[in-house]
Amino acid sequence: MGEFELLERVRERLGVPSGRVLIGSGDDAAVTVPGGATATSVDALVEGVHFRRDTADGLAWIGRKALATALSDLAAMGASPGEAYVAVGVAPDLDEEECLELVDGIAELAAEAGITVAGGDLTSSPTLFITVTVVGHATEPSALVSRSGARPGDLLVVTGELGAAAAGLLVSSKRGIVDPSRFEPLLDRQLRPQARLIAGSALAAAGATAMIDLSDGLGGDARHLAKASGVGLRIAAEKLPIAAGVEEVATAAGADPLELAVSGGEDYELLAALPAAVGADLGTLPASAGVAITVIGEVIAGAGVEIRLPGGRMLNPAGYEQMRQPRSAR
Amino acid sequence: MGEFELLERVRERLGVPSGRVLIGSGDDAAVTVPGGATATSVDALVEGVHFRRDTADGLAWIGRKALATALSDLAAMGASPGEAYVAVGVAPDLDEEECLELVDGIAELAAEAGITVAGGDLTSSPTLFITVTVVGHATEPSALVSRSGARPGDLLVVTGELGAAAAGLLVSSKRGIVDPSRFEPLLDRQLRPQARLIAGSALAAAGATAMIDLSDGLGGDARHLAKASGVGLRIAAEKLPIAAGVEEVATAAGADPLELAVSGGEDYELLAALPAAVGADLGTLPASAGVAITVIGEVIAGAGVEIRLPGGRMLNPAGYEQMRQPRSAR
Repeated sequence: MGEFELLERVRERLGVPSGRVLIGSGDDAAVTVPGGATATSVDALVEGVHFRRDTADGLAWIGRKALATALSDLAAMGASPGEAYVAVGVAPDLDEEECLELVDGIAELAAEAGITVAGGDLTSSPTLFITVTVVGHATEPSALVSRSGARPGDLLVVTGELGAAAAGLLVSSKRGIVDPSRFEPLLDRQLRPQARLIAGSALAAAGATAMIDLSDGLGGDARHLAKASGVGLRIAAEKLPIAAGVEEVATAAGADPLELAVSGGEDYELLAALPAAVGADLGTLPASAGVAITVIGEVIAGAGVEIRLPGGRMLNPAGYEQMRQPRSAR
Repeated sequence: MGEFELLERVRERLGVPSGRVLIGSGDDAAVTVPGGATATSVDALVEGVHFRRDTADGLAWIGRKALATALSDLAAMGASPGEAYVAVGVAPDLDEEECLELVDGIAELAAEAGITVAGGDLTSSPTLFITVTVVGHATEPSALVSRSGARPGDLLVVTGELGAAAAGLLVSSKRGIVDPSRFEPLLDRQLRPQARLIAGSALAAAGATAMIDLSDGLGGDARHLAKASGVGLRIAAEKLPIAAGVEEVATAAGADPLELAVSGGEDYELLAALPAAVGADLGTLPASAGVAITVIGEVIAGAGVEIRLPGGRMLNPAGYEQMRQPRSAR
């Protein structure tokens, strides 16, 4: 199959442009009609660094994950998903069907998330990589939530559950410690992360003053939010919503479940600051977010992140964080 | 130097957000206020495929070229440059100073072209690659020029000069055929292509009905435009503006200068169709384009591309094109 035929088959799988996209893949550039403000983020996933091809059957999950991690940044802005632009470096040992599997994974999540793949670039490369640029829209800039608006007194909340992706990685990488078939949900969180797009929009609508997605881990990402906002964050360890199964896997691996929840990356949940006026019961917010929202602490004057253990001891997330490399810098 | 320190130094080099960019690199996503329509394109450059590090001193030219090739797509839409998002896969043997050199090349061209680097991703990678996504703006979608609007009777024009990049590649790759120091302008065209942003805007304002940038070569790119527009293109070979020095280099290499002009890629000039009403003398267009604009033929009913040689013989650009691989597919 020639290069242009492959491109044709890729385009078929991605469907016709829709929504804000007037001209999609195939011209010099895609043409879109944007909202009053756009949020744009780029993420690259590289074989051997961010994923291994032998981790699972087929390559669809790799395409899916590349788009999911980029979409997670849009979720963290409260932006409405618009378009994705995908560059794939096709390694020499990747055949055309595998290349199309990878595209299928992207197309599947794009359809679920309501984002249009409006353009791309396919090139040969010694190393397989996927760079995804995503554009989200909002009516105006003030509808988007940066990391920098948290104020002392705000509630600190997190979506969903923590530690699942890190525990899933332990299940798949430390063979023999547990029976993998019992921990499918954890493996799934590692391989097929969800971008919290609906929750991000709901949190933005509820007046979130600052928001960040948890790609590197709660400890490190909380510090990014604290630094950008010029505030401190106080988190109660016992309030952290640790995913089912994390404790069992951590114990079997000789790890601390709290460490997985605080320093394990790739949960792709959202951490947000909400005005205290929202109220500690969060009202209708969890219903509109489509996922659990848990109050885990508060924003305080000062700097840095305190994670208080039961009994008043303090956990230093920086110490935890140094145990692992960040997923990647952005 | 840690990863976050390196990112800090990268951000310093890229300057503060400006123009349409309200939040730049460092948050989950960049926030911009777009025009009424946007044009977006992504290009990946991969070491060993699109460039070799030993081609020239330093790495700035690689960053510069990665941005230039992406900007060329905006030029071909007649879009006003807005923002660039850059993902770099940093190879293990690239030290931090080389990484910053590469960023300096991007920053230098960004400043020249008036585009803001609003976001990015730095990650380690076995292979050095640079993915650049560029966003251009226009007041409305109809102000942007696709490949598909050419109509029989339109004039066919090209900006600048052809064959220079291909001749430059011969000069650098076939050592000994000519004295490289005598052909600096050709080498420069290969290493430091110019995106014809001002000419693209001027052609759009003059009513261009279709436009494409010449990345793969006039022959192939003309066929893309013809196919997208559902027309034929008739080009007069003797009208092609062949760059100074191309004939001498081609002769020394045993190549045909016309072949370099027709099938040599990476000239990054623009091919455009203009309404006949503009007139064959093009009026004030060349002055506003800031570069020569040459009428090279016309749009005809039918399909495909005819390149007529003096004496009435016909050149088949498809045959020429097969001699080389396209730079990359998009």
